[in-house]
Amino acid sequence: MLKFALLGCGRIGKMHGDNIAAHPKARLVAAYDVNGDAAAAVAAAHGARHAGSVDDALGPDVEAVLIASSTDTHVELLTRAAKAGKAILCEKPIDLDIAKVEACRREIAGTNVPIMIGFNRRFDPSFAEVKKAMDAGEIGDIRQVIVTSRDPEIPPVGYMKVAGGLLRDMTIHDFDLARHLLGEEPVEVSAMASALIDQTVRDLNDHDTAVIIMRTASGRQAVITNYRKATYGYDQRIEVVGETGMLQAHNRRATTVQRWGAKTTEAKDPLLYFFIERYREAYIRELDAFIGAVAQGAPCSPGFEDGRRALLLANAAYESIGTGRTVTVAE
Amino acid sequence: MLKFALLGCGRIGKMHGDNIAAHPKARLVAAYDVNGDAAAAVAAAHGARHAGSVDDALGPDVEAVLIASSTDTHVELLTRAAKAGKAILCEKPIDLDIAKVEACRREIAGTNVPIMIGFNRRFDPSFAEVKKAMDAGEIGDIRQVIVTSRDPEIPPVGYMKVAGGLLRDMTIHDFDLARHLLGEEPVEVSAMASALIDQTVRDLNDHDTAVIIMRTASGRQAVITNYRKATYGYDQRIEVVGETGMLQAHNRRATTVQRWGAKTTEAKDPLLYFFIERYREAYIRELDAFIGAVAQGAPCSPGFEDGRRALLLANAAYESIGTGRTVTVAE
Amino acid sequence: MLKFALLGCGRIGKMHGDNIAAHPKARLVAAYDVNGDAAAAVAAAHGARHAGSVDDALGPDVEAVLIASSTDTHVELLTRAAKAGKAILCEKPIDLDIAKVEACRREIAGTNVPIMIGFNRRFDPSFAEVKKAMDAGEIGDIRQVIVTSRDPEIPPVGYMKVAGGLLRDMTIHDFDLARHLLGEEPVEVSAMASALIDQTVRDLNDHDTAVIIMRTASGRQAVITNYRKATYGYDQRIEVVGETGMLQAHNRRATTVQRWGAKTTEAKDPLLYFFIERYREAYIRELDAFIGAVAQGAPCSPGFEDGRRALLLANAAYESIGTGRTVTVAE
Amino acid sequence: MLKFALLGCGRIGKMHGDNIAAHPKARLVAAYDVNGDAAAAVAAAHGARHAGSVDDALGPDVEAVLIASSTDTHVELLTRAAKAGKAILCEKPIDLDIAKVEACRREIAGTNVPIMIGFNRRFDPSFAEVKKAMDAGEIGDIRQVIVTSRDPEIPPVGYMKVAGGLLRDMTIHDFDLARHLLGEEPVEVSAMASALIDQTVRDLNDHDTAVIIMRTASGRQAVITNYRKATYGYDQRIEVVGETGMLQAHNRRATTVQRWGAKTTEAKDPLLYFFIERYREAYIRELDAFIGAVAQGAPCSPGFEDGRRALLLANAAYESIGTGRTVTVAE
Repeated sequence: MLKFALLGCGRIGKMHGDNIAAHPKARLVAAYDVNGDAAAAVAAAHGARHAGSVDDALGPDVEAVLIASSTDTHVELLTRAAKAGKAILCEKPIDLDIAKVEACRREIAGTNVPIMIGFNRRFDPSFAEVKKAMDAGEIGDIRQVIVTSRDPEIPPVGYMKVAGGLLRDMTIHDFDLARHLLGEEPVEVSAMASALIDQTVRDLNDHDTAVIIMRTASGRQAVITNYRKATYGYDQRIEVVGETGMLQAHNRRATTVQRWGAKTTEAKDPLLYFFIERYREAYIRELDAFIGAVAQGAPCSPGFEDGRRALLLANAAYESIGTGRTVTVAE
Repeated sequence: MLKFALLGCGRIGKMHGDNIAAHPKARLVAAYDVNGDAAAAVAAAHGARHAGSVDDALGPDVEAVLIASSTDTHVELLTRAAKAGKAILCEKPIDLDIAKVEACRREIAGTNVPIMIGFNRRFDPSFAEVKKAMDAGEIGDIRQVIVTSRDPEIPPVGYMKVAGGLLRDMTIHDFDLARHLLGEEPVEVSAMASALIDQTVRDLNDHDTAVIIMRTASGRQAVITNYRKATYGYDQRIEVVGETGMLQAHNRRATTVQRWGAKTTEAKDPLLYFFIERYREAYIRELDAFIGAVAQGAPCSPGFEDGRRALLLANAAYESIGTGRTVTVAE
Repeated sequence: MLKFALLGCGRIGKMHGDNIAAHPKARLVAAYDVNGDAAAAVAAAHGARHAGSVDDALGPDVEAVLIASSTDTHVELLTRAAKAGKAILCEKPIDLDIAKVEACRREIAGTNVPIMIGFNRRFDPSFAEVKKAMDAGEIGDIRQVIVTSRDPEIPPVGYMKVAGGLLRDMTIHDFDLARHLLGEEPVEVSAMASALIDQTVRDLNDHDTAVIIMRTASGRQAVITNYRKATYGYDQRIEVVGETGMLQAHNRRATTVQRWGAKTTEAKDPLLYFFIERYREAYIRELDAFIGAVAQGAPCSPGFEDGRRALLLANAAYESIGTGRTVTVAE
Repeated sequence: MLKFALLGCGRIGKMHGDNIAAHPKARLVAAYDVNGDAAAAVAAAHGARHAGSVDDALGPDVEAVLIASSTDTHVELLTRAAKAGKAILCEKPIDLDIAKVEACRREIAGTNVPIMIGFNRRFDPSFAEVKKAMDAGEIGDIRQVIVTSRDPEIPPVGYMKVAGGLLRDMTIHDFDLARHLLGEEPVEVSAMASALIDQTVRDLNDHDTAVIIMRTASGRQAVITNYRKATYGYDQRIEVVGETGMLQAHNRRATTVQRWGAKTTEAKDPLLYFFIERYREAYIRELDAFIGAVAQGAPCSPGFEDGRRALLLANAAYESIGTGRTVTVAE
């Protein structure tokens, strides 16, 4: 039974709290949030302690922390939790500033606590099945990885202001998934991005529409396609071309209903709305993998280094957009 | 080069004329129709002789006839052509009256000409592929055959008056297909039928909605589902359950387009409109099979006996509807 | 908070116990089983009382019972629970003997307790969505209902011996679903059944392969297709043809993966294994509907009468198989 | 009746000859090839004149030419045909050398003959339906165009040596299709390419695996994904994301069969083998569009300028691969 403190009790934190409470090998013992009411509500729902401070949340009864607070607090909380010897499951991204990530890495180097970064999509049953089939050699050597990732809605302006831009906020997941599926590090990145949907995006110098290509040293290629307002739904697909075949994972719906009418046939229901619904099992399996790794003393995957490398790719893509060059990825 | 006379130059006759003219091993040499203008038009289109009479159409330059005239003329034309020694490809059904079919069988018994009945669906590329996979043992022993067959439109009243009723006109194809796929003769038939769509159908004591179940001696089962006005399109599907797997053949569309919107996703285009479009390849392959069989002196399949047996099944189904009994099929 | 006693703690009982425990408006307070260890385990898992007898399980702290014991105990437990004034959610079928069901109906007539019968498929999200669309008039008047229902495995011999035969055990669900979707009572039933798969089935005079057709007074038709050993998986689909369109609900899989190779393309993963997996949400929603109906004093649906009518249809189908007649359904 | 000379009677030329002969408004009057036997065969098959020279093929009885000879002869034949006042349907690409294309443009500037370039994919029924729906405003403003284009086989070495490289030979079609669907000119191109499949490709300094991204002035984006040896078949798909929805066109198969087994379900048949099969209707419709444009004196589309612009995009992509820059497309 792994005893958790939850740091951050907003929408995604609340979901993580529910998942911890429902997990047979985990218990939520403390909940903390800068918004005391939010923490109190989560604590009450699961019979946990409402921690009045981070120190309180990192008390001796706590073995692991789940960091789901705002991005700008991740590095500090991760560092304090690591120094307190807690196992850490931290929402992505580690930070928007690679320098802070590097500093954090050095700072916690000696702590040797288990750290997992919340790239939950690796745990999506369909994406995981694709990876498993690839690892089993089902399509031979990997040639191309295509990640289609489109959100159903533009985020609120307030969120966009602090989210680090499309590529560090949204694409960061796709960078991780592409790395995971390529099986090799991308060494070159080229990207194009536009703000086509909304004036507020332009006003923030942010983007809402992007395409990114990457290449590994052996020549494997990845494509990421992003869009912020797919009115037809949260579009999350992967496709991997290999030497002897192709694997795809498609979108998910609440039902299997198909409608046949005079104008269209076999029309399927709308897609599951957004990441909370679409990746529900993925969040649960992510938590399960973390608990399992901690219990067995096995390395967490994806770990801190995966968080760092996804950010490096986002930075390389931004540099490509800014300079019009294909960018070599920094180590 | 097989030299054809076309008997019947209406809509389906015209299509057969085009197919004959386009076939590399066939030539249309004569065209006949009670409507002289129709015959003249077909003859002119393909450089064939406009035959002024059936005798003329059965002249010495003709090796084979394609009978596409109205159903009530099939037996007479088939008999005359057989006695004239011509190979015969006759549209379904042979006749609506089993007594006349039996009499015809006796009448032509000694002629030994090749006779194929136009159950074109056996030649549909998808249905044929299902049969081929079955014959190759892909799903082991056959257990259930499901034929879904729904028309897009109620036929004109004038047509319904002479068509012999839903089961002898439309279901006759499905009876043949079920027999073909079962690989055994159905020995029991039970059916239910209703007139739900249109008052004109009720006025004719005809049906527009029917379900039929059949059983072979070894216990294999077949289901036929018919409907006369599927507003979502001409619905033509088969499904075969076997010992080790299942095979399906699905509907066809003109394009592979899928539309994604807020309310429906992956919506496909409408189905191909009706039998002329849906079974275009099937008609061509049927003709090709006929020409091949004649050239090689091989038996034609489906033959006269298949036409007779399909009619026996329709009659048994009508008896079941009338008596409320499961009917044993007459030999 | 509805306080439940669970009667029957076998595989399906255990699942119901978990669902009750997880439901926010329910609590499992007692568990009973003739196998004391099974009851003790369920009781321990959810902090419930291990009831030593049915009377104990029907104690004053209990407001509702969930009956998941063997079929031959349903009538007795249902009767006792009704007389004890408990709300009842009873697994299907009520009993295999219509006379006992009728007697039970008379016996409990005055109790007026809420009774729901566990035809869980009505609550499957996809089937429910089809029904909702039908009720909203999306396809106009109903014409044909097709229920495809195929199990992945023959049940153990011991189970088959007491299960009442294919039609009272397995098809009973499909009879209920067909009634539910037809929106009218079937008045005529015709059926064919065979034992094709396994000698043990023949030895029990049971069947493993069946097709059933039904007709309502207004002429609507239903088709049920059953098979006991679909090696390709637990095949559960519905199709409804209406005046203006068609609705289908298809099978479910654990993933959305598609495999492309030289011989097959877009190959999807296997189906969810069996009813526990396939109808997981349906069982949860069924429980939720029951709790909601009890809380609001609303009628439970499907209720006792639905259980009785499904059995009448199974009996009519058996009579049709035995007599070779289309059978008029008894009132 | 448009009278054609066919210049080039190899595999694709022969197919064009068949299409011309089968078209109701066209006649093949002459056939020429440097290989006299090939020309003689095509001429004989369709009752056309075997032209002994290009001049002969451009004789007074000829109104239009279809150029299907090897790429290095296109400019010369196109120029001679234009000066002879013939309408021209020329296979892609115009030439591999943009300087020669520019020179040709100047050379034929005054001739004003109709010229269509054989980007047949625009005429594929599914791709055309997508374009039609876009033009009808079905998905609002265009945001992203994804072209997936993968061949089933590496071409013969001899062909690759003269084909101008992957991007000028294969991708040229995708550049045209992307331009066509974007509805705006791409102004920036970035590309990555590898030789992963075969040593012969590496030896030729050619590529077999490529990804290309492009951006228009207004910010619309396109992605092209190429691969030379998709063992799962000739993969030809498009996807267009718009303001209010998404449109896709998928692959084509010879049948609609789906196979269900213990390991995979709904497995579809292999894809149509290669361009001759996959784009059969497209070639026919292309010819029809050409004949229609010539008859009505309407501009041919795609025209010479489309051929030139596709080559400019290929050149920009090669420059991007060579320099590691995002390249601005030359005018």
